[in-house]
Amino acid sequence: MSKLIYMDNAATTFVDKRVFDAMTPYLTDRCFNPSSIYDGAQDVHADLDNARDTIAKTIGATSKEIFFTSCGTESDNWAIKGIAHANAEKGKHLITSKIEHHAVLHSMDALKKEGYDITFLDVDENGLVDIKKLEEAIRPDTILVSIMFANNEIGTIEPIKEIGEICHKHNVYFHVDAVQAYAHIPINVKDLNIDLLSVSGHKFNAMKGTGFLYIKKGTKIINYMDGGAQEFKKRAGTENVAGIIGMAKATEIAHNEMNKRIEEETKIRDYIIDRILKEIPYSKLNGDRVKRLPNNINIGFEFVEGESLLLSLNDIGVCASSGSACTSGSLDPSHVLLAIGLPHEKAHGSLRLTISHETSMDDAKYVCDNLPPIVERLRSMSPLYEDFIKNKK
Amino acid sequence: MSKLIYMDNAATTFVDKRVFDAMTPYLTDRCFNPSSIYDGAQDVHADLDNARDTIAKTIGATSKEIFFTSCGTESDNWAIKGIAHANAEKGKHLITSKIEHHAVLHSMDALKKEGYDITFLDVDENGLVDIKKLEEAIRPDTILVSIMFANNEIGTIEPIKEIGEICHKHNVYFHVDAVQAYAHIPINVKDLNIDLLSVSGHKFNAMKGTGFLYIKKGTKIINYMDGGAQEFKKRAGTENVAGIIGMAKATEIAHNEMNKRIEEETKIRDYIIDRILKEIPYSKLNGDRVKRLPNNINIGFEFVEGESLLLSLNDIGVCASSGSACTSGSLDPSHVLLAIGLPHEKAHGSLRLTISHETSMDDAKYVCDNLPPIVERLRSMSPLYEDFIKNKK
Repeated sequence: MSKLIYMDNAATTFVDKRVFDAMTPYLTDRCFNPSSIYDGAQDVHADLDNARDTIAKTIGATSKEIFFTSCGTESDNWAIKGIAHANAEKGKHLITSKIEHHAVLHSMDALKKEGYDITFLDVDENGLVDIKKLEEAIRPDTILVSIMFANNEIGTIEPIKEIGEICHKHNVYFHVDAVQAYAHIPINVKDLNIDLLSVSGHKFNAMKGTGFLYIKKGTKIINYMDGGAQEFKKRAGTENVAGIIGMAKATEIAHNEMNKRIEEETKIRDYIIDRILKEIPYSKLNGDRVKRLPNNINIGFEFVEGESLLLSLNDIGVCASSGSACTSGSLDPSHVLLAIGLPHEKAHGSLRLTISHETSMDDAKYVCDNLPPIVERLRSMSPLYEDFIKNKK
Repeated sequence: MSKLIYMDNAATTFVDKRVFDAMTPYLTDRCFNPSSIYDGAQDVHADLDNARDTIAKTIGATSKEIFFTSCGTESDNWAIKGIAHANAEKGKHLITSKIEHHAVLHSMDALKKEGYDITFLDVDENGLVDIKKLEEAIRPDTILVSIMFANNEIGTIEPIKEIGEICHKHNVYFHVDAVQAYAHIPINVKDLNIDLLSVSGHKFNAMKGTGFLYIKKGTKIINYMDGGAQEFKKRAGTENVAGIIGMAKATEIAHNEMNKRIEEETKIRDYIIDRILKEIPYSKLNGDRVKRLPNNINIGFEFVEGESLLLSLNDIGVCASSGSACTSGSLDPSHVLLAIGLPHEKAHGSLRLTISHETSMDDAKYVCDNLPPIVERLRSMSPLYEDFIKNKK
């Protein structure tokens, strides 16, 4: 099988050739430690500063508000635990939603064990947080609201601006896990009243092992990694210079091309959604039809087991996912699909296709042409489907 | 100035060409997420497993005891805070030394603020921990001893085997920060009774942003980063695949060439030490003459300001350090040099040269030929030196 159609860009993206080229000097002849005093090291330090500036500008922040981390998960952990531990005397109540990434949910679970009180908000059938219920959940001892910008499985974009206003009004910190949204759709932390924003580099064509946390100036947060004086004395550890330089390049490219990418991806996304829903019976779109990431397609097929579907797609060279890649190996159904009201068996039969600017309309057609017979074949092996058809007649 | 002599390998090393080549596929056409289900991703997962095996073997561990992190600092933070938080019901007392890296010292400081009790052991004039005093410091509520394998500034190798035996005898966890020692000198965690070992990739020709923590099977430790199921559900976050593959390659090379490197570096190290001490008056070696990393030279020059010395060396193309790179930007004298008994003014006048397998005898000669006139010139501008010479006459 030589053909390879990669439609799992929410799991990870491929490093852009221009990003690789930008990184290469820092993996070959510019390997200096930016904290050192000699010329080569100081040059690298200046390059890091420039990368920080480039990144800060993309979200309307200042460069001193950008803290490099090793991944989105680290950013989430730092934001949530760091705020909780620094503001415990004000209160120990945090609010989040049931469809957050595990990096958020499990950080909250860890805090719960320490005696914090966590409200996990329900979402509606499209995955949207109810802002009225969110406001009602805020108490005098609430210190943080953490809501994702867009969901990694179903692509639903949350009402971040409205939530930001509510948090601002009630003087509660607002953390946004923007791992899936950043560099894909516009984000301005000032306009949106965001205090903390988590980002992962490998979701927008930078390398794995990179990320950053935006922390609004004045935010009371404890350090997550103690040690040297890196990252304005807030996150110790020698900087992943090559990774950071690459991440800055990747975001520069993504932002330059953003409008075009959104337009093209939306077109292909809608083409795929429309064809699948039309051509495959008993299929249903998961997530909001409109408030949706341009690259996300998530469709549930009744009487189909998600894993079998993925393996069949793998056989024809299509890379796809049935949920979050981070939890694969687990047989539990997606917590996101359960939270939007799908019963266990339907949550198991979902397919996530996440396209990119490199996805062509030919790729889309290939997938749409090949999917119906695969689903039909899998259903033909399902006793449940057999019963269903029998009863229908 | 085209000549460049890099003698700051304790701050960071240059990525080996073979390491870069090993990484390249994972930054170009093998960017899959190892948690995904399709063939390409599963191949990458297998490559990660192999990398883990390679690394485990170098320290006599099993691959399920190796947990990839983003750097040595993260490994130190995880080991110390993770053990403290998991074993608080047994006790809240930890023991370390005064000359540990800041990643250890500041992690201890953070625990102190949480109510833990920390013993910071003195060291002798060569930087050696007194194992008798260490054993005396162990109490019924002691849960962890954290002692570095070799010091990053003065190169002193601590009596790890003896400390390991003591910890084992008293049933106290033993963490070793091996950031400077690993892949430079042999380490076997079983022989040495080590429960946790922190390692940083960029100290042995892998890229920055890589590291690992060895955690002995059965060790009670909490997770430091919560989220996905990576690293046997102990350290969440998508793996820095390229970095890890590179780190495995780097350690393979370092271990294959270790004996030869130790022999050659020791020869050059001793040549430099002997010539400097002989040719520059009022100079003194910091650290143990024998129990010393093969690549470390640290010499104090009276009546000289370390920073001026570094800038003068920079002018002739020599990259060196006066202390830990992580704290540069700070005007505080090295805590290590203070701990071995140097007064403030002498601690300021130290030079650290850390060579590598790429350092040639010609490089060594160049530095030794050029250092005496630099020191002489700097002293000629020092009023203290002037007074000293006057009083001597």
